[in-house]
Amino acid sequence: MTRVAWLVAAACAAAACPAAGCMHAQPFVSGDRTAITNVITAQAAAWNSGDLAGYMNGYAHTPDLVFTSGGNVRKGWQDAFDHYKARYGNDKSSMGKLEFHVTEIDPVGADGAVVLGTWKLDGPNAGHGVFSLVFERRAEGWRIIHDHTSSGPDTPRSDAPPS
Amino acid sequence: MTRVAWLVAAACAAAACPAAGCMHAQPFVSGDRTAITNVITAQAAAWNSGDLAGYMNGYAHTPDLVFTSGGNVRKGWQDAFDHYKARYGNDKSSMGKLEFHVTEIDPVGADGAVVLGTWKLDGPNAGHGVFSLVFERRAEGWRIIHDHTSSGPDTPRSDAPPS
Repeated sequence: MTRVAWLVAAACAAAACPAAGCMHAQPFVSGDRTAITNVITAQAAAWNSGDLAGYMNGYAHTPDLVFTSGGNVRKGWQDAFDHYKARYGNDKSSMGKLEFHVTEIDPVGADGAVVLGTWKLDGPNAGHGVFSLVFERRAEGWRIIHDHTSSGPDTPRSDAPPS
Repeated sequence: MTRVAWLVAAACAAAACPAAGCMHAQPFVSGDRTAITNVITAQAAAWNSGDLAGYMNGYAHTPDLVFTSGGNVRKGWQDAFDHYKARYGNDKSSMGKLEFHVTEIDPVGADGAVVLGTWKLDGPNAGHGVFSLVFERRAEGWRIIHDHTSSGPDTPRSDAPPS
């Protein structure tokens, strides 16, 4: 390596990040939006074919995964999977038909995103509500690291008088 | 500037980020965890002194803010503020006493974080539940860009027989 090349390499090593502790990250681009949408679409398709493990593939396979709904919190991919299996079984008839509608996808910093959407489940555990999914760009692709799912708004009571 | 200095500058501009579209970001450090906790602590303190505007200071002042609870979605800082004013008024007696408990703070990529915690409100709008707050590192500091607050778990019915 020539003296000039060494100088360039040394200067770049010092100048590559302007601030102490700076790190490189990927900006959020339209392809990321598509990739995230595809994860959610694949989850619904897996659920509706009775493939609970396939559904769980959208979540980061980590003990740090957070899943909260109805005021309860599940921690870790395995705990979330076990909870789903206990509640919904593992076949189409017990799982019911699930629909997701993505309302918006917003970048969070450089390598994160948060998705707002609505869910509707028909079948033995019918319900509807809103979800927030925090995605992280990971080595295996975009995966959910935090899921907050809630029910509502309440539908009018069936015994309510016509208004 | 000498020829060598120009060469260094040009080479660094090309080499600063190893991948196409790469950008600089700050890693998540313990000071960030403290800063985020401080935002949440300041929010509760402002609420409990009847300072709704001070409470709102924890949210990013942007039309992109997402706030969802009870199946309803508010979009934008102003809409969230107007909703709070309409629902809780703007003084201590109508707002009640709010308690936050932070369960965990997890980094999201380089410049984001998601906070899981529980809330409890006494007063005219008493309730309790779980919140997920997505924070972003912004020019003005860490601010909430997405808030998903839900109620539950249900407490035992007061008319239920002893078990």
